Amino acid sequence: MMTESMEKRIVGLGVSEGIRFGKAFVYKPLKLEEIKESKTESPEQESDRLERAKAQCVEELALLIERAKLTLGEEKAAILKGQISFLYDPAFYPPMLKLIQNDHWSAETAVRRTVNQVAGIFESMANEYMRERAADVRDVGGRLMTHLVGHQGARLTDIKEKSIIVADDLTPSDTVQLDKRYVLGFVTRIGGKTSHTAILANSLGIAAVLGIGSAIDVIGHGEDLIINGSTGECVLRPEQSTKESFAGQMAAEQDEQERLMAYAELAAVTKDGFGIEIAANIGTPQEAVGLAEKGAEAVGLYRTEFLFMSESQMPSEEVQFEAYRQAAEAMQGRPVVIRTLDIGGDKELPYLDLPEELNPFLGYRAVRLCLDRKELFLAQLRAIIRAGAYGNVKIMFPMISGLDEWRQAKGLYEEARRQLIAEGVKIGEPIEVGIMIEIPSAALMADRFAKEVDFFSIGTNDLVQYTIAVDRMNEKISYLYDYFHPAVIRLIKNVIDASNNHGKWTGMCGSMAGDPIAAPLLVGLGLNEWSMSSSAIRRIKQIVTQLERSACEQLVDRLLELDTPTEVRAEIDAFLKQHPFV
Amino acid sequence: MMTESMEKRIVGLGVSEGIRFGKAFVYKPLKLEEIKESKTESPEQESDRLERAKAQCVEELALLIERAKLTLGEEKAAILKGQISFLYDPAFYPPMLKLIQNDHWSAETAVRRTVNQVAGIFESMANEYMRERAADVRDVGGRLMTHLVGHQGARLTDIKEKSIIVADDLTPSDTVQLDKRYVLGFVTRIGGKTSHTAILANSLGIAAVLGIGSAIDVIGHGEDLIINGSTGECVLRPEQSTKESFAGQMAAEQDEQERLMAYAELAAVTKDGFGIEIAANIGTPQEAVGLAEKGAEAVGLYRTEFLFMSESQMPSEEVQFEAYRQAAEAMQGRPVVIRTLDIGGDKELPYLDLPEELNPFLGYRAVRLCLDRKELFLAQLRAIIRAGAYGNVKIMFPMISGLDEWRQAKGLYEEARRQLIAEGVKIGEPIEVGIMIEIPSAALMADRFAKEVDFFSIGTNDLVQYTIAVDRMNEKISYLYDYFHPAVIRLIKNVIDASNNHGKWTGMCGSMAGDPIAAPLLVGLGLNEWSMSSSAIRRIKQIVTQLERSACEQLVDRLLELDTPTEVRAEIDAFLKQHPFV
Repeated sequence: MMTESMEKRIVGLGVSEGIRFGKAFVYKPLKLEEIKESKTESPEQESDRLERAKAQCVEELALLIERAKLTLGEEKAAILKGQISFLYDPAFYPPMLKLIQNDHWSAETAVRRTVNQVAGIFESMANEYMRERAADVRDVGGRLMTHLVGHQGARLTDIKEKSIIVADDLTPSDTVQLDKRYVLGFVTRIGGKTSHTAILANSLGIAAVLGIGSAIDVIGHGEDLIINGSTGECVLRPEQSTKESFAGQMAAEQDEQERLMAYAELAAVTKDGFGIEIAANIGTPQEAVGLAEKGAEAVGLYRTEFLFMSESQMPSEEVQFEAYRQAAEAMQGRPVVIRTLDIGGDKELPYLDLPEELNPFLGYRAVRLCLDRKELFLAQLRAIIRAGAYGNVKIMFPMISGLDEWRQAKGLYEEARRQLIAEGVKIGEPIEVGIMIEIPSAALMADRFAKEVDFFSIGTNDLVQYTIAVDRMNEKISYLYDYFHPAVIRLIKNVIDASNNHGKWTGMCGSMAGDPIAAPLLVGLGLNEWSMSSSAIRRIKQIVTQLERSACEQLVDRLLELDTPTEVRAEIDAFLKQHPFV
Repeated sequence: MMTESMEKRIVGLGVSEGIRFGKAFVYKPLKLEEIKESKTESPEQESDRLERAKAQCVEELALLIERAKLTLGEEKAAILKGQISFLYDPAFYPPMLKLIQNDHWSAETAVRRTVNQVAGIFESMANEYMRERAADVRDVGGRLMTHLVGHQGARLTDIKEKSIIVADDLTPSDTVQLDKRYVLGFVTRIGGKTSHTAILANSLGIAAVLGIGSAIDVIGHGEDLIINGSTGECVLRPEQSTKESFAGQMAAEQDEQERLMAYAELAAVTKDGFGIEIAANIGTPQEAVGLAEKGAEAVGLYRTEFLFMSESQMPSEEVQFEAYRQAAEAMQGRPVVIRTLDIGGDKELPYLDLPEELNPFLGYRAVRLCLDRKELFLAQLRAIIRAGAYGNVKIMFPMISGLDEWRQAKGLYEEARRQLIAEGVKIGEPIEVGIMIEIPSAALMADRFAKEVDFFSIGTNDLVQYTIAVDRMNEKISYLYDYFHPAVIRLIKNVIDASNNHGKWTGMCGSMAGDPIAAPLLVGLGLNEWSMSSSAIRRIKQIVTQLERSACEQLVDRLLELDTPTEVRAEIDAFLKQHPFV
């Protein structure tokens, strides 16, 4: 008994800073397929269990509907109402009871079988609306199952108090369901510094410790937890003295943040006058609000996929236009670089019906998908161009591998523009159109691209992944993933040099841009625009303003002579030690 | 009825040349999980079905045991004997009968449930030997199921007459089970020019048409089939006139082959004196026999993974040594470049218990695995070094991404050598040790590697895949996979130039080396060793001997100015049209 209540320390990977105290919300999404089929000796008892679960579902849905009306709008509320009506449908609930009473199946088996059967019928229908109802059936089935098996199946939408979410992993579609007001932190079994959970946590200022492995199994639902997103520490069932110690650290961190506040307003100019545009990465237009106070001079990456992932169907041109316009207006004339849909890979959209792939990172994603589904792409391009009338909007295409793709995508941009002009729709001046550099072949061809594009933005996360052939999410080999690999530095240099030769500008929107250790290297290479999570901006400005570009250029010359990432890191470390701010 | 017997033409991707006439052998591996659970109304009848299937299994196994003794050795035969004993085990067969007679399950359900239960017990045991028995249980279960459901579950080991294998796809582990004497050709639903099925077909001289898609479903087991592995044509139930027309083509092809025979003996030297070493890719030591007659001056790539995949356990150092020595001796002093284990990715080894990966091509494979499992790697290095006493053996490491990995692998080579010397084991002189260039980061760092390695061998298949971030097996985007992408040409040039600057040699062992269209480009770049499937050698020699290196160098200069793969192909086409042999 004693051991159950003892304090326990776990260390993972700190990927998003902040010390947080809260209750653990253990999220284990329940898969219907995982339920083992079983029979029961007491059908009456099973029927009662199912009845109770149904009553709980109805109560829960009613509550969610009220909440949805306030926060998500009538449309979302209507979907939830549809789920209640399924629970009263004679083709849904009575067959479950029959399976228990006549065939002595367990309540779980009865739910599983009925859901599969009813969803299967919907899925086989020609009418798209009816096919979409299959998802609702499965959703309400999952909800019933959750109540049958207890808290083990707790759902992310159920979080009603401030909590630290504990999960094996959080998919992008999980994270869009979150009510951010209640989320203090994330703790996950798998995942690294550049996973989507890490990116999301950073952009929302949620503390996060990832990759704690099997230690996650000891964290019980509702238990007290402290996490430190900088050091990766987690303390389960902390004692009073531990709580006090962390509270002290928290206060010290706040002091440091306030000290850095002064840097937010500073321009990022090196001592010898090299000026950098410091920008922020965002996933929703709401994040653009207040960015200026955090020191961002632009949005360097607006990830539009979050808009697509938060809906159960394709957002219309109109819905998209509203979102992009909001972001443009919030930035009040400062640049907003909107990346076109970067879906596929590890980011799914159920309504797009994407193929299962053996190697999704080397597959049908981003611009490859958009060039294949031109209507979808044109609708997005039209929405972005229209938003251009309300601010300083730019477009960039992700996953460009060659000039053919770029020219096709640019052609569709021009087609969208022509359409809008012909229709007399309000648009602004022609906008800048650039590409992400995240595939080695594009980095190698930068001199050719530089003649045609308006700008580059280097996506280091994917670029490193492909250049070194390493999936950054795969823990067996993630030690190889390093943007200080000399080959990566050569590619980045090739891109910036090519861009400079043609009078274009180069940005960077991968995690490297927000890493203080990388700053002298990026100054030395002459990177023009650095886009990062807004929480990293002040620290980067503090460093950049204390660097001299000439010294950084000499550093780059030395780095280019080195063979391995370890040597590169050591050389930068030595350089930073000579500077007062380290 | 009429339509059933009508001739039908299907076109796929011709990946391995040759016109073949034969019976279709439809291979649909049966997965126990795919069997739907069902009940029966007549348990007696089901019991009879199961009894018959059991009797057929025993008969079949007895036959296979006799055959195995002759061709595969006593050890393999013993495994099959173990399967017979399972059929008589009181914990295996009687429970199946009980499930039918007491609970009225169908015979298939009874087999599935019992196999899962018994295999599950074995799998949970601590003793490794017992855990391996689980695979035997599943194997004999699959065999029973095959007989229950009829020919649908035909097994590759059952092929007893000359056939054309028709399958969704053939995994490397499927192909090692084949009795090559009976295999005339392959026809598959999926797969492209650089899939493993294509590579295997080429190296064994089996005609192959891949990627015919859903058309595969119309081919019935045992039906007459003609395939043309050059054009990708398949004719199902051919009429007499069709047969005659194909027979005519076959004769013409043989004439052409004989005409090319003259080139086999020629040295591959351009008109202006640039000499190339033409080598062959092999997967087994047997393939090294007679290579000289086919015009190969060396083995440029010995894929050792086939040795590992054809065994149910790790081949010992001794078994490996025998294989490598055989290959070295067969080549009689000519070079044999042995690639260390390139497993992982799409090539599995059940006995290594590799992790499931989201993106296996960006995962734990090849040298990454070998550096992690040093005992396995040392055993292979020792076997190769020992074989070096019997011929001109060289070692190359696959999937090297940076200098760290190369230095570690080279260090283990030296350790293996030291061990053998200390043990007084017979070895030859120090041998050449090089690396595959198949990851962009290695290609980019070629100048650094060139100082340390003895040679490079460019693996274009993977290099293209990573450089363009495209899985060549993924049909949705395989149109992007092209080794004529200007970025790929730049990388290859970077490698060859770096190698020349340091007096080292460069080989190539991807499919590009055997492509006649690529020949002028590779001559112009100055590639020293070209390794290909032996069937491609004569054609390549014919072309190379008619080229002038100086003209090819000018071609390369023009190609380096181009933007897209399409432009590159057009420029090479124009060049080849000026030459008499096109």
